[in-house]
Amino acid sequence: MRSIQETIELRYTHAVHFTRGVFAAGNLLLRDSLQGGPGPAKVLFVVDRGLAQANPALAGAIAGYCQAHEACLQLVRAPLVVPGGEPVKNSILYTRMVQEAISDFGICRHSYVVAVGGGAVLDMVGYAAATSHRGVRLVRLPSTVLAQNDSGVGVKNGINAFGKKNFLGTFAPPHAVINDLDLLSTLSDRDWRGGTAEAVKVALIKDPAFFEELERNALALSHRNPAAMEQLIYRCAQLHVRHIARHGDPFESGSSRPLDFGHWAAHKLEQLSGFALRHGEAVAIGMALDSAYSCLTGRLPQKDWDRIATLLEKLGFDLYTPELEREELLAGLTEFQEHLGGEMSITLLDGIGKGVQVHEMDHVTVGEAIGELRRWSQNRAVFRRTL
Amino acid sequence: MRSIQETIELRYTHAVHFTRGVFAAGNLLLRDSLQGGPGPAKVLFVVDRGLAQANPALAGAIAGYCQAHEACLQLVRAPLVVPGGEPVKNSILYTRMVQEAISDFGICRHSYVVAVGGGAVLDMVGYAAATSHRGVRLVRLPSTVLAQNDSGVGVKNGINAFGKKNFLGTFAPPHAVINDLDLLSTLSDRDWRGGTAEAVKVALIKDPAFFEELERNALALSHRNPAAMEQLIYRCAQLHVRHIARHGDPFESGSSRPLDFGHWAAHKLEQLSGFALRHGEAVAIGMALDSAYSCLTGRLPQKDWDRIATLLEKLGFDLYTPELEREELLAGLTEFQEHLGGEMSITLLDGIGKGVQVHEMDHVTVGEAIGELRRWSQNRAVFRRTL
Repeated sequence: MRSIQETIELRYTHAVHFTRGVFAAGNLLLRDSLQGGPGPAKVLFVVDRGLAQANPALAGAIAGYCQAHEACLQLVRAPLVVPGGEPVKNSILYTRMVQEAISDFGICRHSYVVAVGGGAVLDMVGYAAATSHRGVRLVRLPSTVLAQNDSGVGVKNGINAFGKKNFLGTFAPPHAVINDLDLLSTLSDRDWRGGTAEAVKVALIKDPAFFEELERNALALSHRNPAAMEQLIYRCAQLHVRHIARHGDPFESGSSRPLDFGHWAAHKLEQLSGFALRHGEAVAIGMALDSAYSCLTGRLPQKDWDRIATLLEKLGFDLYTPELEREELLAGLTEFQEHLGGEMSITLLDGIGKGVQVHEMDHVTVGEAIGELRRWSQNRAVFRRTL
Repeated sequence: MRSIQETIELRYTHAVHFTRGVFAAGNLLLRDSLQGGPGPAKVLFVVDRGLAQANPALAGAIAGYCQAHEACLQLVRAPLVVPGGEPVKNSILYTRMVQEAISDFGICRHSYVVAVGGGAVLDMVGYAAATSHRGVRLVRLPSTVLAQNDSGVGVKNGINAFGKKNFLGTFAPPHAVINDLDLLSTLSDRDWRGGTAEAVKVALIKDPAFFEELERNALALSHRNPAAMEQLIYRCAQLHVRHIARHGDPFESGSSRPLDFGHWAAHKLEQLSGFALRHGEAVAIGMALDSAYSCLTGRLPQKDWDRIATLLEKLGFDLYTPELEREELLAGLTEFQEHLGGEMSITLLDGIGKGVQVHEMDHVTVGEAIGELRRWSQNRAVFRRTL
């Protein structure tokens, strides 16, 4: 029996740029990120409806920018506007709509799709772009904290199918990511605050100094201080991107998902709440749960658990939600593992900045951790009432 | 303005194994290609209906094989049977059916989908597997000459959409490819013969010694000599896989497509004939056209053109089809370029084994090349009548 064996190597440059006023004619970052061949590059914009409604001037600004740089950019049509949030991932129709526009307007592997919006819109548009012509170039302009510091700077895309989150999707490094702080100005307080959860996550598993920085800046962050947020997003995105590039498994072919600390419960809580809980809010509770569990199993010192709970509260998060008491919660452990497959792998904490992989969780102790969150939350309620 | 920049590197082992009797219990190749974690690996088979009908014992053989190796393999259900040929790529429904089976039977990134069939089935199943859970493992068992020596050993998958061939798809190296010569035994003469076209192609653009070997073996090949075919498939697959791995652009992010010699016309002829022309037959005509063009423009010596036309005829190909005269043919040039995008790039020949990239074709000369094919074909018809 004969065999042919070859090694195929691929190399991507993954770049995340930070700017303000990305559509100001004098800001050349976007233009320079859309380099084409000899003629102008064809560009299709897809915009999150929430953002478009909050910024009625956005479509005009995009058209004006392309006009100002018409030697380099050819806007193929007015921006396609799609709903934001989870609904855009629940139907294949929006993906189809973007793919059809790519077909109709002759977007090729040397043209660009620019997605402007929150994480769900970036996920859906990324999936449509990655599967058209086997991958046309995607530039992401995330418009939420969560998308700028986490999902939007990663290499995944996807939509929901067969009742499963992100069942359909691919790994596909974007051509570029541009984080414009100004795009966050119309965010609700709830979404502003929610976005800080992934920063706490990456600090907890990787970087105690970043955790201390978050403790120092917690009040500024909860009061929408832009400079504090800019720094948080930069550091969180940097740790995230470095992890992808430097930890040997960018497309997650193994069983380990250290970046998903707190996420097994978070995904399930989002679903059990009918998505009334936002992703960041659910991640905060999921991290609190796994931190309390780490403490109860003797991994995490009590004083570290107190610091974690205190920081999350200062940032404005609840640590408890009634969905924690639902029996179905523990199914989240199995579902979390099924997506990636292989051995069950959950991240816990041996300390602040010290993530550790374990391969099982004790259901009784999970119940005790939930009790700890309930008590903590009741004490805070009493504390607030006595203020 | 700050930036984060990292390099993401990926490395795939791309392996094509050759065997006979892949489902014989004593043949451990398939079992060893489906290595899982600690327990047995879950496996979902998807089989080409044409093959299943020609081999009524196939489903039983697959079940028997998994039974014999139950410590390693867990067959999740009876093989899913899907239509073969282009129709399976024309509707999203078959892709959906495979994705749904992946969901229903808990196929994860450490489980396997095994696709058994012709190139169209492998393309469709590959797309479904690559987009489920962001990519579950795919093992291909190609059952046609064309799939064993060309499409099945590559890194592409895809289906047709919006009236465009392979509009939806991804680049995704398979986990393994197993070429079983016995799977070819039920092929029609037409498909057996048709599969040799891609071998002529790769010889013409890369390897004059392989071209001479094909000349020597032409009659044996057209008379279904299995040893000659095995050698053809091995060498063709080897040249194809080496090109992908060693030429610096495995996922075709540039503009050049040297492996697509003869394919601009072939794709269009298949479509204009309503797919009455098979892919190999259309590629033979497409190569004849671009070879004649290379000769008429002074690149290819006349004696080389004669050798090419003679070899294609000996292998049983027609060099002419009335669809060549259709006005729409030249639109194939634009459509060919649009898929990849970037600069127009067509492969011509400077000699046998010497492919060369050009960036335009003269329409008048294309017409003259078609005239040459017409005359050649008429002369052969006269010659055959006088026999």
